[in-house]
Amino acid sequence: MNYKVEYITRLFQKTSKKRIEHYCLTRLWHNLDNDEIKMIPQQYVGRHQDKYALTDVFFPQFKIHVEVNEPAHYSTNDKINADRARKQEIERNTGHKLYTIDCRKDLKGIHSQIDDIVKIIKEEYSNHIKGNLFKSWDPDTESNPNYWKKIGKIKTSDNVWFHNIEDICTAFNADFNKTKRGFLRRGAINHPNGKNYIIWWPSGKVSRAGWINILNEDKDEIIESNSDLIKNEKHFNNHYKTPQRRITFFHQKDILGLTSYKFLGVFEFDIRKSNKSKGVVWRQAEDELMLDLSDK
Amino acid sequence: MNYKVEYITRLFQKTSKKRIEHYCLTRLWHNLDNDEIKMIPQQYVGRHQDKYALTDVFFPQFKIHVEVNEPAHYSTNDKINADRARKQEIERNTGHKLYTIDCRKDLKGIHSQIDDIVKIIKEEYSNHIKGNLFKSWDPDTESNPNYWKKIGKIKTSDNVWFHNIEDICTAFNADFNKTKRGFLRRGAINHPNGKNYIIWWPSGKVSRAGWINILNEDKDEIIESNSDLIKNEKHFNNHYKTPQRRITFFHQKDILGLTSYKFLGVFEFDIRKSNKSKGVVWRQAEDELMLDLSDK
Repeated sequence: MNYKVEYITRLFQKTSKKRIEHYCLTRLWHNLDNDEIKMIPQQYVGRHQDKYALTDVFFPQFKIHVEVNEPAHYSTNDKINADRARKQEIERNTGHKLYTIDCRKDLKGIHSQIDDIVKIIKEEYSNHIKGNLFKSWDPDTESNPNYWKKIGKIKTSDNVWFHNIEDICTAFNADFNKTKRGFLRRGAINHPNGKNYIIWWPSGKVSRAGWINILNEDKDEIIESNSDLIKNEKHFNNHYKTPQRRITFFHQKDILGLTSYKFLGVFEFDIRKSNKSKGVVWRQAEDELMLDLSDK
Repeated sequence: MNYKVEYITRLFQKTSKKRIEHYCLTRLWHNLDNDEIKMIPQQYVGRHQDKYALTDVFFPQFKIHVEVNEPAHYSTNDKINADRARKQEIERNTGHKLYTIDCRKDLKGIHSQIDDIVKIIKEEYSNHIKGNLFKSWDPDTESNPNYWKKIGKIKTSDNVWFHNIEDICTAFNADFNKTKRGFLRRGAINHPNGKNYIIWWPSGKVSRAGWINILNEDKDEIIESNSDLIKNEKHFNNHYKTPQRRITFFHQKDILGLTSYKFLGVFEFDIRKSNKSKGVVWRQAEDELMLDLSDK
């Protein structure tokens, strides 16, 4: 099935539990009527240190969030004030805009609020187009290894990701067969011509061997550790001051249940943060990379 | 909550299991963008005698059905032919139109098919408006007892229904307190001034006392029976050739889980079909009624 069909129909299905929110989300999508615009449900945003919020709908290209407030949000003054504070915090902390739909209204009242938001997003869209700033939602290109091979270079800002390990190998002309280890799958392979460079696809889930990779919110630090303290220490000793540079594709299952390997840049050993008990900390050193490293 | 908001948000939620069908349904609704147009999911239609079909979406005001065919519908020639035969049968048998959306296409391909159907429905709408034939979807009026009291007359073609027994009583100036029998609720009460007329709200669910009312597809016949043969026979004997005229509001829970009491006309004892074992058969005798019967 076509990826966009897969994505948006899953998105609708997954967000159908809260029916008013779901109705508003479907209307935003259909009334925008522009499949170059990406819509994300339940986006994490920082409010202030150590405090995060989930917004109902997010348009990443325009940094616009939409909150759908069911009638209960307005039941007391305290709740109204808390919502206002939350909105201000989110906007201040992220520089994004947050719009709210008040669902105490009747159908026409709900529609007119959605119309207003659609109008704002359409204006943003045409401003982006005019300023040559618009980056179209294009998952088929973003995830196409042959496209990136032709370009020759990948950047984290290009939102590069692949469907599977085979596609990662294709992009680098690496031998997919070398990723296999009997019935298991290696977690990385050497770059075919980049000295010290390995291609790595860590996962946030605990592996059968007890390894886990924890990615921070800013996506520039990964802590690689094992619940077995002996393995952990050995791994630390093996990598201490390693010149290894890890071209990192983080394996994730998104909210819609679609898996992907997202390019996060090139990571190197962080001597300041790594230690025997915590594990090996990898830090982003480059956010772009030539695929062919024979000149390096 | 406003009834239309309740209805359409529940409709979206209940239809979210099949995600492509759901996507098309939400797009049809939002792109029509006209809350005078009623949309019904999973409509029963007769194909030929004793054979019924469910269509995915139905627009009753224009007698237009929409089927969303997922890719599996096209996997064999037999399936394609079966779908074609089904479409022809439904159209011939009902006089309705049935349109199909082929979901093997990508997002733009699906959108363009929906655009075509939306265009057809919009044309139908403006033709109906011009010809003064359009009956707006107006649940708040349809179910408002005071509105019908003012009109003085109800017709089945007006799609009259009420939210509860209290509203039925209000429409007829009947005493709601008389519907109570201790903790139970009577199944009918006498009309305040119509001789032989009772106001009846049968349910299709089996009652605690074993009664059940089976409504036929054409909604002009109700079989009232009891699983206890002795009760059944006694009831038949009590009603044999009764002059009783039953103003009937059939209690139903629709596919969205919303309950209502729908006016089906005035029913009388059917001497030809009723019998001791089958039960008492009530047949529609009038499809409209003055609410005040003091002249009768």
